[in-house]
This record gives sequence, structure tokens and C-alpha cells, in this order.
Amino acid sequence: MVKIAVDGMGGDYAPHAIVKGAELAYKEGLADIVLLGNEGVMKPLMANPSGIEIVHTSDNVDMDESPSVALRKKRDSSMNKAFELLREDKVQGVVTAGNSGAAMAFAIFTLGRFQFVERPAIATLNPNVKGGISILLDAGGNVDCKPAHLAQFAVMGDAFARSVLGIDAPRIGILSNASEVTKGNDLTREAHVIVKGLGLNYVGYVEGMDMYKGNVDVVVTDGFVGNVALKVSEGVAEVLMTFFKENIGKGLKSKIGYFFLKDVFKELKRRIDFSEYGGAPLLGVDGVCVICHGRSDEKAIKNAIGMAKGFVEKGLNDSIKEKMQGFQLLQRIKEK
Amino acid sequence: MVKIAVDGMGGDYAPHAIVKGAELAYKEGLADIVLLGNEGVMKPLMANPSGIEIVHTSDNVDMDESPSVALRKKRDSSMNKAFELLREDKVQGVVTAGNSGAAMAFAIFTLGRFQFVERPAIATLNPNVKGGISILLDAGGNVDCKPAHLAQFAVMGDAFARSVLGIDAPRIGILSNASEVTKGNDLTREAHVIVKGLGLNYVGYVEGMDMYKGNVDVVVTDGFVGNVALKVSEGVAEVLMTFFKENIGKGLKSKIGYFFLKDVFKELKRRIDFSEYGGAPLLGVDGVCVICHGRSDEKAIKNAIGMAKGFVEKGLNDSIKEKMQGFQLLQRIKEK
Repeated sequence: MVKIAVDGMGGDYAPHAIVKGAELAYKEGLADIVLLGNEGVMKPLMANPSGIEIVHTSDNVDMDESPSVALRKKRDSSMNKAFELLREDKVQGVVTAGNSGAAMAFAIFTLGRFQFVERPAIATLNPNVKGGISILLDAGGNVDCKPAHLAQFAVMGDAFARSVLGIDAPRIGILSNASEVTKGNDLTREAHVIVKGLGLNYVGYVEGMDMYKGNVDVVVTDGFVGNVALKVSEGVAEVLMTFFKENIGKGLKSKIGYFFLKDVFKELKRRIDFSEYGGAPLLGVDGVCVICHGRSDEKAIKNAIGMAKGFVEKGLNDSIKEKMQGFQLLQRIKEK
Repeated sequence: MVKIAVDGMGGDYAPHAIVKGAELAYKEGLADIVLLGNEGVMKPLMANPSGIEIVHTSDNVDMDESPSVALRKKRDSSMNKAFELLREDKVQGVVTAGNSGAAMAFAIFTLGRFQFVERPAIATLNPNVKGGISILLDAGGNVDCKPAHLAQFAVMGDAFARSVLGIDAPRIGILSNASEVTKGNDLTREAHVIVKGLGLNYVGYVEGMDMYKGNVDVVVTDGFVGNVALKVSEGVAEVLMTFFKENIGKGLKSKIGYFFLKDVFKELKRRIDFSEYGGAPLLGVDGVCVICHGRSDEKAIKNAIGMAKGFVEKGLNDSIKEKMQGFQLLQRIKEK
């Protein structure tokens, strides 16, 4: 059975939502679980016996703490101790809903990066209208990227789409302001030239719409742009739902309409709800790591644990490692 | 009566949609109109008498033509001739649905920029949940901006929100990946320092969601990021609508639901439909110019003409000019 270390103290609703999510995952037989955190706080929240192993830790990373400060002062935190268990091969994956910048810093520090990966990237899974999933990376904190970083993201995204999504020749695109290669900015234009030479199924520049339309499997972008794009998406979805709710409440006719359309709304909510996906994989570090939304509830945590287990079973990290090593070109770019 | 020059040959549905939109605007008394383009092609599409003045031009800018090529070779195009009429004070504004890069190039070349404006910007008007409008600039082609450019966008956006939207102290924000000032990238961090010193009602970093929630009136960003953000928004809205349509068709219950909710859907469509807004103002050039979506239909053109007329009557450009001159700081930044 795959064993996952769960950071019990990270997230807006920790430790309660984390403990409950871990118990749900265990009960459903998704994975064996080690829960890290303050035993005195977590234990009273748990079933007895719960079947989940607890490793007591004395410190937590705060949600708004600077990653560099956390890295210096919080080595004994539940978050870092989870990564240490993974490094020592006592677990096969880590799930945390804590401070994502700190999670990235600890993952790099404690697990290390794969060869040729300068910057690990957070990949988000986005449902598209064709019923599939398109991934976008980096959605994390890699702002001010260099062209070679984007090329590395492309290779890692390719490995992810092959090993986890089971796509034979993933379509890779660079997120841009228009599809013509004369458009883009300095970064995308240089990255375009590099990625074109990598031997991937590179489809060129894509726009945000292509991701949701399912015209591309892997969307590569700078972490600043990726993050802005995702937050704008959330904003639009939220506004549309608010609009429906407000207008639906307005008259009897609308109320009747809502009654009949309830199932459609429910399905929509399920599809765009991040908690259904659980979390976002951190790619490029030497170990499976799933980073969850700070607002994760128990369902999101449970699904993130299932996700981590899936990544372990599908050999995600071996395929990234192998793929990165195969790209001698990347090394040459790096040496430039 | 305000007189507007309309580029009859620009846009995916030109000249038909343009001619019809111009006629509608004239019939509704929005403005006097000069239509520029091939008389032999446009005249048969028009009512007789139509009341609209035609200025025959012999050349057109193609939708996918490079702006620099257009600038060299298409001086006699319907697009540039419209800007020339404006420069000669024969009209008070220009509306075009043609190649937006070329429109920007001709506007700069023929009309000139205001003092202290290095890069004119396209501002989009975005409906928010509070029933108001938030503007985003630059949504055009200003990729790879410098911090001083963003500061200039902030000042122009402030002038727009005051003079056109009638907001006393417009809330100005810089689009970023998070609200904390420690986040952002090199560009936003430097721009943040400059904009903070401009004496505007600057609210700091904002996220895409804030625009749709109505927490900010003016969102300032690099044209690459702004364009990506807008296209992602369109994508999400389109996907959600597709989802509704597909699921609604599935069963009798859903069909009944749709019948009762029809008005809500209609209102939603009206709110997110760009043709309701008409177009996007180009700010920073010496003359009122509204750039329309390439896919504009006659309603969009009509509304864009009404928009241009409104900008003229509200003295938009005088207020931008004045505001820019007032900011001596900007000059100092520029001189650095």
C-alpha cells in the first residue's frame, strides 16, 4: 500500500479539515497515512482507533510567513518533517494545504531537484469542454522566468501528461496573447525557439481559451502570468455564478426555472470546484508532492491524497526524471 | 452635432456590418457620420438617401497585415484617412474594427501622442458584479512594458474613470499574482513604487477577481498580461455557456428549466456581450479613437459610435492631456 505523509497543520481550516480528510482517505482505502502535527491538538479530533499514524511535530509554518524565513526557522515544522519522511523513503508522497511558497522552498531544500530542473513548477489541472484535462504550468511562484525555464516546464508537462493522463503525444503550447508567432513578448519568443527544437508535440502559441476548449494538453507559462490567468478564471466563474444566484432569486418564474435546472447547476459546480481535483502537483522535485488550495476542505484533502497515490503508482517522478535527462539540449541551453 | 469618422473597410464583417452599424447610429441620432472606404462597394449596401457622408478611399489595411508594413504602404487606406480627418478637425472621433495593431500605429503616426505618454494604451470596459464598470489597460499590444509605462497607464486610467465614468477618486490597482506587496514580479514591484508616489487613489496590487467584484476601478497591467487575462475570461465565460447549453438540452426537466430561466440567460448574455459596449478606447493619442473587436456586428459598431460621441462630449482627451501634464513626476521618471 502506498503511504502518504499529510501536513496536518497547513491550510485555512487546519487541523480539522486535514484530519477529517485524511481519515476519509484512509477509510476509503486510498492510502496508508502519516499525519504530522501537534498530537495534542489533532488526536481529540480523530476517531479512536483511527488507523492513521501520527508523528508529533512542535512547530508550524504560518500561512503568510515568508518562505525564506520559514526555511531558516521552521525546520521542525509539520510541513518540513513530512518532506523529511519522504526523503527517508518512509512515505512515497506528501500532501500539504499550507503556505505554498514555503512548501516549494522546503521541497527543494529537503528533497532536491531533478537534474536539469532549475525551477520546479506547480501544475494545475483544468477541466476542458471535451471532458478532458489540460494542465497549466507554472501556476506557482516562478515569476520573471527565463526562456530555458519555460522549456523545462514544457518537458515536465509532457512527462506528466504521458504518465498520469495517459496521453501519447501531448500537445504542448506556450501561453501567449495571440496565436501568431510574431506576437508574444521577449520571453515567449525566445522560449518558442527553444521548445520548437525539443522534439515534443509542440503546437506553438496558444491563448487562454484553447486550454478550456481542449485544444492543448500542456500550457506552458511564466508563474506570474499563469497565476494571474487562473485567478481571473476563478473570478469570472464566481461572477457568473453570483449573477445566476441573484437573478434567480428575483421572481417566481426564475425560482421554478432553478428548480428544474438544479442538476445542471450541481454538475457545473462539481466540474469547476477545485476540491474535486484535490490539489496541484509540484513537478521537478525528487518526490511526489501535492500542494492544495489554502481553503481546502476535507473532501479536497481526501482527493489530494488519492491524487498523490495515483502519481506514485503511475511512476510520475521516474518519468519526469528520465525525460529531463534525455534532453541533452536543455543542458546545453543551461550552460550558455 | 458630434461627427465621427468610421472605417468602413475594417473588421471581419466589413463593409456590410460597418455600413449597417453606421446607418443605425445615424438613424438613432447618435452622431453625424463620415464613412471611409470603397464607394463602389459600400454604396449599394446603403439606404438611399442615407444621410451619411462617404469619403472614397482606394486602399484597405488587411486584418493580418503587420502594423509596420501597413504604416509604410497603406497611407491611403480607409483607416488612416479616418485619422487624417480627425487631425484636420473635420471630425471629432474615429471608430474602427480593423487590424488593431495598425490602428494604434496610424493613430500614433497621424494624430500624435500627448506629452509624457510613451505608449498609448487600449482600455477595455469590464462589467462588475456591483453593476459598475472596471477598466483594464493596457489590453492592447504593449508587451514588455517598463515600470514608467505602467505609471502612465495609471494616470490615463484615472483620467478616463473621472471624466467618462464620473468617479471622483477612482481606485487604481496594479494587476498582480497576489495582493501582498512582497509578491508580483520585477515590473510590478518597480511600478508599485512609482504609482504610490503619484498622488492617485492607489489601492496597491489587485488580482483578476477584484476587477469583476468591483473592488477596483482601474486595473493597470502590461499589454501581454492584460491580453492573456481578457482572453482567459472570454474562454471561461464561453465554456460555462457551452456547458449550460449542452446540459440543458439533455432532458425534459432541463428544457422546462431553461424556459423559465430564459430571461436570466438573456440578461447574462447582454452583460458579457462585448457588442453591448461597442469597443475599447485608445488612450494617450491626440484624438478620440474607439477600437472595436474584429468580430463586431452592426450593433457593436453602432454602440462604438455612441461611445466615441460620449468621449467627445465628456472631454475625455482634454482631461487625459491635462492630467498627464500635471504629473511632473512622470517626466522626471522618463528622464532617468
